[in-house]
Amino acid sequence: MTVINTIVEDTTTTFTGWATTGALPLKQFSYHPRPLGSKDIEVEVTHCGICGSDISTLTGGWGALPGPCITGHEVVGTVVAAGPQSLHQNGSLVGVGGLVNSCGDCKDCNNGFQQLCAMKTFIFNDVYHDGSNAVPQGGFADRVRVSSEFAYKIPSEISPAEAAPLLCAGITTYTPLKHFGAGPGKRVGVMGIGGLGHLAIQWAAAFKADEVVAISTSDSKREEAKKLGATKFVNSRNEEERKATRHSLDILLVTSNDKDANWAELIDYVANHGTLVFLALPEVATVAVPPSALLMRHISIAGSLTGGREITQEMLEFAAEHNVRPWITTMPMSDANAAVKVTIEGRPRYRVVMETEAAARLQKH
Amino acid sequence: MTVINTIVEDTTTTFTGWATTGALPLKQFSYHPRPLGSKDIEVEVTHCGICGSDISTLTGGWGALPGPCITGHEVVGTVVAAGPQSLHQNGSLVGVGGLVNSCGDCKDCNNGFQQLCAMKTFIFNDVYHDGSNAVPQGGFADRVRVSSEFAYKIPSEISPAEAAPLLCAGITTYTPLKHFGAGPGKRVGVMGIGGLGHLAIQWAAAFKADEVVAISTSDSKREEAKKLGATKFVNSRNEEERKATRHSLDILLVTSNDKDANWAELIDYVANHGTLVFLALPEVATVAVPPSALLMRHISIAGSLTGGREITQEMLEFAAEHNVRPWITTMPMSDANAAVKVTIEGRPRYRVVMETEAAARLQKH
Repeated sequence: MTVINTIVEDTTTTFTGWATTGALPLKQFSYHPRPLGSKDIEVEVTHCGICGSDISTLTGGWGALPGPCITGHEVVGTVVAAGPQSLHQNGSLVGVGGLVNSCGDCKDCNNGFQQLCAMKTFIFNDVYHDGSNAVPQGGFADRVRVSSEFAYKIPSEISPAEAAPLLCAGITTYTPLKHFGAGPGKRVGVMGIGGLGHLAIQWAAAFKADEVVAISTSDSKREEAKKLGATKFVNSRNEEERKATRHSLDILLVTSNDKDANWAELIDYVANHGTLVFLALPEVATVAVPPSALLMRHISIAGSLTGGREITQEMLEFAAEHNVRPWITTMPMSDANAAVKVTIEGRPRYRVVMETEAAARLQKH
Repeated sequence: MTVINTIVEDTTTTFTGWATTGALPLKQFSYHPRPLGSKDIEVEVTHCGICGSDISTLTGGWGALPGPCITGHEVVGTVVAAGPQSLHQNGSLVGVGGLVNSCGDCKDCNNGFQQLCAMKTFIFNDVYHDGSNAVPQGGFADRVRVSSEFAYKIPSEISPAEAAPLLCAGITTYTPLKHFGAGPGKRVGVMGIGGLGHLAIQWAAAFKADEVVAISTSDSKREEAKKLGATKFVNSRNEEERKATRHSLDILLVTSNDKDANWAELIDYVANHGTLVFLALPEVATVAVPPSALLMRHISIAGSLTGGREITQEMLEFAAEHNVRPWITTMPMSDANAAVKVTIEGRPRYRVVMETEAAARLQKH
């Protein structure tokens, strides 16, 4: 096993996880984390979800990787070491998402949009901009070491396995629905019923949107969509159903990262003055957008990226209170390659969460 | 000269203008207008501006035309006939823009967005959806006959020639700046200093935006931009100036319809959470938008189309009060082909307004 070269690292400590440099299969890989800073925590991973961004990174879909990369950004585990100024204590169950650092001082950081900070750091395939050049690694591993400021208390109502997908799929869908005002008076559509979409439907229903329209290419999700809280289901390959829904949605969340998506067809669902929000990056540099639809009907296209610190904790509390939970399949992290394969094949309904051996040692938190 | 076949027409009346079916040169063409309805007015045209949309229509850039089409949607003239329920009287000086009808009853009509009504009618290359199938024709002509509800009183402070471009270039730029909150606290950019852009700069300055950044490919407009009210000028071909402005604009109006526009470069000017609003339709079905920039910095792309009835009258009053005026070159409408040629060559600074023989008969209104 190789040991990665970080500029600043704690050579007395070794974490081990599943990495690639841009092609499958994942291979076991060990690295030295950055030294435990005064606000840092070390988390023994019990669970980690598998998200589309992991897949795009692991398979090289977003480009080659500079070195071995351990993905995984829906991380749940137990704090096993904490710096003196840590916000979390030893033994606490915490979650860590995609965002693990920001400057803390810019306009976006001050406004709770740490994910837009120019100095932000993602949990993998990135570098800390604090001068250390340390390289973070993700949660397909036995441990992660991160700032406690970017770790969140898991409410006791939520099981650790179910908490994991909330850290990315959950916050990625919660943020734009909140921001664009999903709620009474609004008709919300969710395109793509998968890891993100099945949570988006639940949020929109909990926010009491007038309509929650689930849109999928597969009729097989019709009943499940209703169970999740959808008021209506549209099979996008059914011309009649599609036409009956055109120009009707005030907010359309596009959760899939399909690089061949037909943007004209997507925009056609959106009501005048409405917004199409896409949440996942297709593996292409540009997408083909028809300008006439945007101009003639005052429609906006927006992107939304995960969520900041405050809204992430808020989302977890909201999920606890309103019984929003991902539907998950758990698999052992020792079978990481099998778990990734299942995800690539689009089989999970709706999220694969890998479980480590440490999960068995978890006491009821 | 041919006479067009409208389903409902007033065969006792003939209007004459300059038409094409999608290729230059314009040729003289006569048609029978729809009968004068109870709310209609007949306007003797004194002035008509030439806009990019006229050019895209005249040259077939937006597709072939079904029959001879008289463009022109920045129309000013005198009311010479009025139905019994008309909102304007004989002798009044009025303006007519691109929008000449809507259902008057839908949500958008009720909210002042008549231009988004599904039953709207544009002044040319369109048809009335009131059951008559009558075909409207534009202002490159001696007269137009339209609903008085879509004609606007020209404030006495504004000359008829200067009023003309306000009916399209003016309202097209006023509407989005108002809608997206250009004013104190906002940094506004205007890409393209032409017919639309030179008015956009004036509106943004009058709205007291923190910054009004004029962006152009031509250094020759640097001084003029400042005269128009820009606080800063960026030559987009000057790498240094461009970089100094990146990620800084809360609202960027893109006024050109350049089909080869580099959208990544445009988006690069926009600040996190900002909006790029485009106002002119490129002559292509789709444009290539980089999704990562929208997603990673929470940027929106929106289109905006002219303005509704109430905001158009408001815009004219605002222009009168705040001394917002287009910079124009007048040419006789009898030289329509020369005027169109000058516009296509991008020479006017900043708008060609054609003047008919009736202009000489105008009394000070």
